[in-house]
Amino acid sequence: MSRISPLQKARAAYQPKLPAALRHGAAVRIVSGEATTAAGDVEAIRKLFAATFGSPVVTFEAAPGCAGKAFNVGVILSGGQAPGGHNVISGLFDGIKSLSPAGRLFGFLRGPDGLVKNEYMELDAAFIDLYRNTGGFDMIGSGRTKLETPEQFEQARANCEALGINAIVIIGGDDSNTNACVLAEYFKSRQIPIQVIGCPKTIDGDLKNEWIESSFGFDTACRVYSELIGNLCRDANSAKKYWHFIKLMGRSASHIALECALQTQPNFAIISEEVAAKKMTLGQIVDEIVAAVVARAEKKCNFGIVLIPEGLIEFIPEIKALIAELNELLAANAAEVDALDAKGKAAFAAAKLSADSARVFKSLPEGIQNQLCNDRDPHGNVQVSLIETEKLLAGMVKARLAELKKAGKYSAKFGTQTHFFGYEGRCAAPSNFDADYCYSLGYTAAALIGAGCTGYMASVRNNIEGADKWIAGGIPITMMMNMERRHGADKPVIRKALVELDGAPFKYFAAHRAEWAVETAYVYPGPIQYFGPSEVCDLVTKTLSLEQGKGI
Amino acid sequence: MSRISPLQKARAAYQPKLPAALRHGAAVRIVSGEATTAAGDVEAIRKLFAATFGSPVVTFEAAPGCAGKAFNVGVILSGGQAPGGHNVISGLFDGIKSLSPAGRLFGFLRGPDGLVKNEYMELDAAFIDLYRNTGGFDMIGSGRTKLETPEQFEQARANCEALGINAIVIIGGDDSNTNACVLAEYFKSRQIPIQVIGCPKTIDGDLKNEWIESSFGFDTACRVYSELIGNLCRDANSAKKYWHFIKLMGRSASHIALECALQTQPNFAIISEEVAAKKMTLGQIVDEIVAAVVARAEKKCNFGIVLIPEGLIEFIPEIKALIAELNELLAANAAEVDALDAKGKAAFAAAKLSADSARVFKSLPEGIQNQLCNDRDPHGNVQVSLIETEKLLAGMVKARLAELKKAGKYSAKFGTQTHFFGYEGRCAAPSNFDADYCYSLGYTAAALIGAGCTGYMASVRNNIEGADKWIAGGIPITMMMNMERRHGADKPVIRKALVELDGAPFKYFAAHRAEWAVETAYVYPGPIQYFGPSEVCDLVTKTLSLEQGKGI
Repeated sequence: MSRISPLQKARAAYQPKLPAALRHGAAVRIVSGEATTAAGDVEAIRKLFAATFGSPVVTFEAAPGCAGKAFNVGVILSGGQAPGGHNVISGLFDGIKSLSPAGRLFGFLRGPDGLVKNEYMELDAAFIDLYRNTGGFDMIGSGRTKLETPEQFEQARANCEALGINAIVIIGGDDSNTNACVLAEYFKSRQIPIQVIGCPKTIDGDLKNEWIESSFGFDTACRVYSELIGNLCRDANSAKKYWHFIKLMGRSASHIALECALQTQPNFAIISEEVAAKKMTLGQIVDEIVAAVVARAEKKCNFGIVLIPEGLIEFIPEIKALIAELNELLAANAAEVDALDAKGKAAFAAAKLSADSARVFKSLPEGIQNQLCNDRDPHGNVQVSLIETEKLLAGMVKARLAELKKAGKYSAKFGTQTHFFGYEGRCAAPSNFDADYCYSLGYTAAALIGAGCTGYMASVRNNIEGADKWIAGGIPITMMMNMERRHGADKPVIRKALVELDGAPFKYFAAHRAEWAVETAYVYPGPIQYFGPSEVCDLVTKTLSLEQGKGI
Repeated sequence: MSRISPLQKARAAYQPKLPAALRHGAAVRIVSGEATTAAGDVEAIRKLFAATFGSPVVTFEAAPGCAGKAFNVGVILSGGQAPGGHNVISGLFDGIKSLSPAGRLFGFLRGPDGLVKNEYMELDAAFIDLYRNTGGFDMIGSGRTKLETPEQFEQARANCEALGINAIVIIGGDDSNTNACVLAEYFKSRQIPIQVIGCPKTIDGDLKNEWIESSFGFDTACRVYSELIGNLCRDANSAKKYWHFIKLMGRSASHIALECALQTQPNFAIISEEVAAKKMTLGQIVDEIVAAVVARAEKKCNFGIVLIPEGLIEFIPEIKALIAELNELLAANAAEVDALDAKGKAAFAAAKLSADSARVFKSLPEGIQNQLCNDRDPHGNVQVSLIETEKLLAGMVKARLAELKKAGKYSAKFGTQTHFFGYEGRCAAPSNFDADYCYSLGYTAAALIGAGCTGYMASVRNNIEGADKWIAGGIPITMMMNMERRHGADKPVIRKALVELDGAPFKYFAAHRAEWAVETAYVYPGPIQYFGPSEVCDLVTKTLSLEQGKGI
């Protein structure tokens, strides 16, 4: 047994808070709402999910003394790590045991693959106790295999039947929950008595809607990043020497960048959704940052903080077009291009691209040009995730300021430091919010299983209030679906929640950013606190608070 | 007034703990020890510090009810930020006020420059209260100007006399404390009645000896880095996909890397002092990491954590020699070299270097070769701090593994992520240890002033025990000095404390690292906690604990 830290030890004893309806166990009275429909393309969704479509939203009422039957449940962690995954599993375990001590929990190993390949371990109380309130997905591992084919479903069925498993809980993001629903439909339409329940996980914050207020891990990850950003704000304001360009994890939505901006009040934060909506060019983004640098220089503040969402590059229309062209161009001329050296490839691209894309390409620093032409994935595509956007922007701002200096319009010193915060936050020990929320989600999943539901996502709402006022229940996954074009085919998917430019969080940011750009209005959130005053330990994200009509 | 975070608000109310001798105020009974000498070159030091040399070590005894006279004090923050600087100032303020409510505190702005240029602000109770227990040096700013010339000293004297200042407190590292002592000698030898007191600051941990057990900020900075390293350990162990190469701040000593290794138990940690002592080559370091990667691959653990001290490159004898040669070579041929492009410069260097250095140069990746030849400071020297050692090592390990793969000796996947943690930790809000320690240092400085001492460093020892058992007092700075060659001249300096290879912290590390390399023995310290159980909040560093003969 390895050494554990004092905090791990103390934290192991934390008892997560539950919604009132679950205080007496997961055997609850079910309150069913109206039948439901879909988020879009209703008829197509109804057709694809004939067996599970239209189920009602359900909520729970406490049913003290009410025992359930014994359920054997299999649980899967799917996709990237998010703080609190272990608490979903421990809540699920405690919930199953509250239904009947004879119930058992199996963890399928390394993600959905474990279910298909029958790689699992039984999770007993002693093992669960090692992981309560800890970060990471190391308890049973995770994986990115997609559950989508009938062959996989049949394997899953066979493996569950062999273990006597009545229900599967899939902890994952939008895609994984979509697949959970397809699996539920597959079982239900064939009268296979295996229920499937999903739990909403992602630090990116993009699995969110009217019924799912929070995806777990977002709170903790944003707090870790905001701690570090706050520290850098303080450092910038002390040393008065550097502009820090900070890239933040989050490929497809800028919720993390926005939340961190609301927590720390940096001088500049880019929101990808706004860049796309305004069809901004890379040059325009650079100009805006330069304007902030120049304005601050006039106040003798030659330091600052810029937040950059990881996925930015693909939201800039001209860069998106350039990358699409490059992918096609280099693939069509693979033999010829492969024979060239780095410079040759760049020259080839510059010569053959459309006029617009060639102009954009040539405006990029040489290092990025090379990267676009050279670092390609096995399918020959540009690896956007390798582009160091924080260095690209810092370099372009520096170059633009040098031009201004030559023109006599700027005379200060401009030093930069670049950072990328991502992996540091995915496996942090969950905040009290995520610890409570995840435990409640797991417990809710057990209650949904006890109530015979399938194709549901566990839902714990009213998160703005204390846990005792949280509303636990289940949402039919079909209700959140519409049809989208993916890889050339129409597929049912849960609509991804991007940052809404008319939503309260963005509007708060937009209303204050001009002031934050020029003033030094930093807030220093500090590290996550697990003990101490409730106003320090039991927080919700600024995003949630604003979405629910509260202040920040 | 800008918004402050809930933690800032709660933390503002924290009352730092003081040594028992200071509980009744800074008017204490002084207990003087024997006269002292120097750490080396005694006669030279005695000659340079004729007025201040040989003062006794002093400690305090509480003297309840004993009032002092009113002192006006000027305080300076010098050099890089370290968590707790604001608490030194608030401790000093409270200490001065305890001597007499009529005492006043002036903050010289932006470092030693403020003293010379007479840029200052008076620090009153309301202003001090805004900064209690906060990180950063933004309260009065810091700077890197060295106080060394008689002209500066005369300016300082004139400015202090104009403000009626009786004493100056300089909060800084080894160099700043050396300069504090030179200034004290200057004043005392001329019967100028201005005392000078130093306080030991540096996150690097290299200002440390028998009398100074800890330099402030080291504890907090190492805890921030260890939180992040622990999170990455958990992420590595969950995703099982990446080796993380993590560079840690600390140019001249590896105390930070060693402390973080003791806190988190990574698979590999490089200690620069060992590299220098064993005259290791870059290739040998790479081979050792490769051995760990291969050993872990055999256990199907294709992930890991490598810690790299920022200053490593200058501790590798062959690289040190290469850089020295390059500096000379390129300076001597500046005109010819400047006309060449990047590749041309590298080719020029490769052709003209000595055989040994040319071999080392050619073994480096092209990007690093270019950097060595191109990114030069205004004096034409290689900018070692710009070398991304973490990427260099990750790249070289990858290349070596590719060779092993070709030879059929390795068949696993090797993915890397690189990180640099530095600025994130320098301005964190101080841990309870640093908050208490710094406040006590400031209070001790006030007591030394009250007792008429000059040329002393504030000393708070017995840090392994609770604050009430800490031993407060002062150490004559001359006692820690010897003569060293700096920029071609012999200068009196405080000896820098490097990691001692026969010291308990390194020996503990050395005894366990073989196991940590292969096993996954990570410890997850989590974020600094300010509230909650004492065993979680009131910690000391593993380094201190081992140095003082305790376990970890």
